[in-house]
Amino acid sequence: MPPRQAAATGTHVVRRMNVAAVLSALREGDSSATVSSLASATGLSRPAVTRALGELRDRGLVELTAASASSQPGRPAQYARFRAESGHVAGIDIGSHKVLVMIADLAGKVLTVLRAAVPAGVTGPELFEIVRSGLTAAVTEAGIRLSGLWAVSVGVPGVVDRDRGEVLLAPSIPGWAGLPAVSLLRAWLHCPVSIDNDVNLAVAGERWRGAAADACSDSLVFVHWGRRIGTGIILNGMTHRGSSAAAGELGFIDLASGPDDPPGPRHADGIGPFERLVGAAAIHRLAQEAGAPAGDEEDISPLFDAAAAGEPAAVEVVERVAARFARGLAALVLILDPGRVVIGGGVSRAGDALLEPVRRHLRGHALVPVTVHASVLGEQAVALGAVRHALDAAEERLPVSGRET
Amino acid sequence: MPPRQAAATGTHVVRRMNVAAVLSALREGDSSATVSSLASATGLSRPAVTRALGELRDRGLVELTAASASSQPGRPAQYARFRAESGHVAGIDIGSHKVLVMIADLAGKVLTVLRAAVPAGVTGPELFEIVRSGLTAAVTEAGIRLSGLWAVSVGVPGVVDRDRGEVLLAPSIPGWAGLPAVSLLRAWLHCPVSIDNDVNLAVAGERWRGAAADACSDSLVFVHWGRRIGTGIILNGMTHRGSSAAAGELGFIDLASGPDDPPGPRHADGIGPFERLVGAAAIHRLAQEAGAPAGDEEDISPLFDAAAAGEPAAVEVVERVAARFARGLAALVLILDPGRVVIGGGVSRAGDALLEPVRRHLRGHALVPVTVHASVLGEQAVALGAVRHALDAAEERLPVSGRET
Repeated sequence: MPPRQAAATGTHVVRRMNVAAVLSALREGDSSATVSSLASATGLSRPAVTRALGELRDRGLVELTAASASSQPGRPAQYARFRAESGHVAGIDIGSHKVLVMIADLAGKVLTVLRAAVPAGVTGPELFEIVRSGLTAAVTEAGIRLSGLWAVSVGVPGVVDRDRGEVLLAPSIPGWAGLPAVSLLRAWLHCPVSIDNDVNLAVAGERWRGAAADACSDSLVFVHWGRRIGTGIILNGMTHRGSSAAAGELGFIDLASGPDDPPGPRHADGIGPFERLVGAAAIHRLAQEAGAPAGDEEDISPLFDAAAAGEPAAVEVVERVAARFARGLAALVLILDPGRVVIGGGVSRAGDALLEPVRRHLRGHALVPVTVHASVLGEQAVALGAVRHALDAAEERLPVSGRET
Repeated sequence: MPPRQAAATGTHVVRRMNVAAVLSALREGDSSATVSSLASATGLSRPAVTRALGELRDRGLVELTAASASSQPGRPAQYARFRAESGHVAGIDIGSHKVLVMIADLAGKVLTVLRAAVPAGVTGPELFEIVRSGLTAAVTEAGIRLSGLWAVSVGVPGVVDRDRGEVLLAPSIPGWAGLPAVSLLRAWLHCPVSIDNDVNLAVAGERWRGAAADACSDSLVFVHWGRRIGTGIILNGMTHRGSSAAAGELGFIDLASGPDDPPGPRHADGIGPFERLVGAAAIHRLAQEAGAPAGDEEDISPLFDAAAAGEPAAVEVVERVAARFARGLAALVLILDPGRVVIGGGVSRAGDALLEPVRRHLRGHALVPVTVHASVLGEQAVALGAVRHALDAAEERLPVSGRET
């Protein structure tokens, strides 16, 4: 009897949709929502809104407070507020030098950012202990308990099997690949834990809270430009990871030699041809060879300071670096036509002193306009993207449909 | 009163869904479907299937025939068949040398392929007349009328504004850009007419009926390798066109010079640096310079025949061409990680004599596996992709949800 089934299903579905609509209006609107304002925002009747609010209050997601004496006779107005503090998420950026832990409430408000240094030569299990104690300390600082975490998302360098929650390849952290970090975290935390490549989280962070957050397009490319060069890609609102989770490997494109030369040494040190050409270490070396201020391999900012001050050798090195990088970036832009690119990573801290010549050289290669922004999130991009992914996972516990990322 | 509304909506929605489910089962199954087999395929009751079949017959989409005397007592069994001939679509490939018109029924069965040569130096309006008479002849050959076309899809070289149905840039066909071809076709045909870049249709054709059609992945890259080099990209089942409809411009990546050389002359002839390096004309020139059989610019197959026969100069040229091409293809593969690539266009007719060295050189650049197929559709890839797009548009007239492409 399809009609009768439909009616029964329909009622249930409509009630759930009403609850979701009211919650969505509450989360998007200001904090002083009333039954009337919610009825008008959702198109639902006042009784339907009242019923949905009751259910949301029973689930701890909404707080109802009586307004001060109403000017109207009859029942006093009630204010409804989404209790963003009813749940929390953690975003964790695990790198070879540092672990960054971020705690946020269900509204995405960041409550705590905790940074722990990672000593050189740390083993996988030692690194896991740093993550564990960092998360414990961050949760305490945020004034919540570990059991208050609805979801945790982890970003790591290297190739990740998201389905199995495993790091397959992590050249920069010895002993980290193969460690069942996600299983260990899940067993400890009893909440959904996901893991992703760090640039895939960085592009999510940049799209959410970064330099390109106000743009209307649904596509964004994030290029990490440091010692390594990698790319996080969002197309049509979805992270593009590729058929083997290996998309965005800009660092391995080969522009280092002429068209008929053999390719450079393969995987000699796990560093790709484009990284060898224009990564942080290559820039440092170019500056040294040119007799320009070169800083050290961890911080090449003296080169860019000198270029900004007009020091000829430094200006020439920056020009050469920009031309090389633009040629590789052009390959990415010509293939994807993303409209917008955000550059992050250590080298990007040079800002417009470097990005302005990059933009100029890029115009010589590109066919259509593309805007190039410097990351404004800096070191926090990965952890913020992890918070965004964790919020998406946490939303599955809310009576709303989660977004796809 | 949400529940009552839901019941009313529910019945209507359920009836429409039942009709769609029965039609879908009919189109996917064999031609001897019965009420019983459809009930079992859809999970619907026999009365619901009978009601849906009646509606589909009234709309001309289904033919019901009484089966021969049933062995069971009671009403005789009926066979239901989807009337794929109740509508037709056309796919049109407009190139600078030829126009290809393909007519197919609603099951995607190709009834007619018509090829019309395009004289050199043709004007836009003259080309439009070739399309018009070609379509008229093809429809006649298929035994239908123009009014029987449910949708038409057109592929052209150059940059296309799909929303406005205009060709913005068509360097290879003078006078074609700016011609309101889609408006003229719509006014003439009174059915949906869409236009797209030819490589975007070629990749749709290859995914549907080509070398990679049996693969389970939802991503595919098609590289047109002829005088021009361009790429059609399907990711997660959707055509990736880019924010300015300029994605896939592999022909413009710059591998022609060393990393610190200035970029080559810009748009001197509308030919990109990678096309100048390894397009058909460049291969022809390389063969001539090496004293190998070179054919002519339109057909360089003598070079590949000589290489297959072991002629040293030809082998060396093919090796160099493969190495150059693989380096550019690697950039695409490293950025997209598509898993599968199909190579089409005139140069690809060389087959494995060329693609085997391309695969070998590609392995020296790529990080994860990628399979490289030669197109088996050849010249028909674009028109077949246009048929596929037209079928998607035609499905909007059927009681099913259309696919996104």
